[in-house]
Amino acid sequence: MSELEFIRWLRDRIVADARVPVGPGDDAAVVRLAEGREAVVTTDLMVEGVHFDLTKTSPRLVGRKALAVNLSDIAAMAAEPVAAFVSVALPKNGGGELARELFAGIAELADEFGVAIAGGDTNRTDGPLVINITLLGQTTQRGPVLRSGARPGDAVLVTGELGGSLAGRHLTFQPRVREALLLHERCELHAMIDLSDGLATDLGHIVEESGGGAVLRAESIPISEAAVAAANEDGRGAIEHALCDGEDFELCFTLAEAEAKRLIDEQPLEGVAVHRIGTISREAGLWWETDDGTRRKIMVKGYEHALD
Amino acid sequence: MSELEFIRWLRDRIVADARVPVGPGDDAAVVRLAEGREAVVTTDLMVEGVHFDLTKTSPRLVGRKALAVNLSDIAAMAAEPVAAFVSVALPKNGGGELARELFAGIAELADEFGVAIAGGDTNRTDGPLVINITLLGQTTQRGPVLRSGARPGDAVLVTGELGGSLAGRHLTFQPRVREALLLHERCELHAMIDLSDGLATDLGHIVEESGGGAVLRAESIPISEAAVAAANEDGRGAIEHALCDGEDFELCFTLAEAEAKRLIDEQPLEGVAVHRIGTISREAGLWWETDDGTRRKIMVKGYEHALD
Repeated sequence: MSELEFIRWLRDRIVADARVPVGPGDDAAVVRLAEGREAVVTTDLMVEGVHFDLTKTSPRLVGRKALAVNLSDIAAMAAEPVAAFVSVALPKNGGGELARELFAGIAELADEFGVAIAGGDTNRTDGPLVINITLLGQTTQRGPVLRSGARPGDAVLVTGELGGSLAGRHLTFQPRVREALLLHERCELHAMIDLSDGLATDLGHIVEESGGGAVLRAESIPISEAAVAAANEDGRGAIEHALCDGEDFELCFTLAEAEAKRLIDEQPLEGVAVHRIGTISREAGLWWETDDGTRRKIMVKGYEHALD
Repeated sequence: MSELEFIRWLRDRIVADARVPVGPGDDAAVVRLAEGREAVVTTDLMVEGVHFDLTKTSPRLVGRKALAVNLSDIAAMAAEPVAAFVSVALPKNGGGELARELFAGIAELADEFGVAIAGGDTNRTDGPLVINITLLGQTTQRGPVLRSGARPGDAVLVTGELGGSLAGRHLTFQPRVREALLLHERCELHAMIDLSDGLATDLGHIVEESGGGAVLRAESIPISEAAVAAANEDGRGAIEHALCDGEDFELCFTLAEAEAKRLIDEQPLEGVAVHRIGTISREAGLWWETDDGTRRKIMVKGYEHALD
């Protein structure tokens, strides 16, 4: 596929997506949000050699991930994704073929989540491949869930299992869009974030923006098999991987104790477990607590991203 | 300014912009559109060495232009700009200082047009500087103006004077946001586009998407001084520059004959003239017409963009 053929393909795809709620492709896309909803917007730029390595990862998975990380951000607000705007800077050699594969990965995930590809900008570059996706979503009738709403005494929960994502899951993860919407519908969520920089860092954002801190039980942290494998590999603890590894793209959220108990009992998310990992405290910072009530500050050693 | 200082500056700016209608900065920005309005979204990516040359153009003007071209696209829909999302890939050396200047240019124009910088993504690259801006706007109560609404018999008008933009105006042009809104309020605009690829190409989009063609009077095309200077330089005609040069970022629009006459008489745009250049025809294509009624097909030789 030549670059020109690719640009035509993209234009055709945009026109095909120009259905309600996305209006006709023109100088700008017109997107009709549902009555009374707010727009939710996130953007993410990925650079070859910094965020991915095309000698190791297929362009299709790179495209998929470029959309998936944005979907995860929309999920973190408990909002519905609506329309994606895709800009690429393509290397002058082989850019057309690369673009075709990138967009195959984007289109597949977009279709799965009912997201219209509503606009884009295709350019050339002498440098590495760059892809930027801006995702427009809309709040539900219940409004967005922010990071800043956690209250002392709230239970802290996460979806799925944590750590070791860089062994592969960071390319194939399912953004928790449906899960976030279902939780938002069933519960009164106080605060939520997606785990992109690691549990300790991201839960840190919640407690900093809400005021207070969090007390965690080490034995409650759901550790993925990949975290165990990574621990066996590098000699660090599996719990450290679960706490610090980036790119899990699971949800971390807080809600009232009683609601949390009900949620844990019901386990309403299809194929994804919710785990209680701790409690929001008045005291700032993140703490481990043991059975005898002793508390020990959690030391965070930063986080890892793909190639970063 | 280090890159970290820049990221803090950007975060502070985003928080400062987190006023109505832009909600709290979180995993995604929440933007409240006015009641009953539709979202209008455009995105544009610029690459160093392809779209601009930092040895000739200051990063401040590059930042300004990156936002200005998006503002021009929102203007073309007769919509109001609301919030900008700015992604950059910064070269590893000197990226912080570069970013500061880029954003100074963006912030100045954003302030001038009441646009919130509501989100962004800062990254590093081994390659050239890349900047992507996605601009979110909202339709007015009268809805968007599309390319596809031109009707046979419509007058074709443009704002300002055309051609020779690459001598400098492409970096400093005023996007015609206010002008488009005022025209949309006062007249029933049938079709509109901004002139980014040259009058012939862009008016071509209007007639292709509307069906039909356009008959122009050569003596009516407003030729800029820069087009005359460019013609003196390269020996091509000034009219050819006015017709084919890219990046004028003026508006081209169509409306009923009677309304056009009133508009030309009133000249309601402060400091910007509106010119009647021709008429929409049933016959496809673009044509020159002379006083004696003879028609001659307009041959388009493509267009020029900065460095492109």
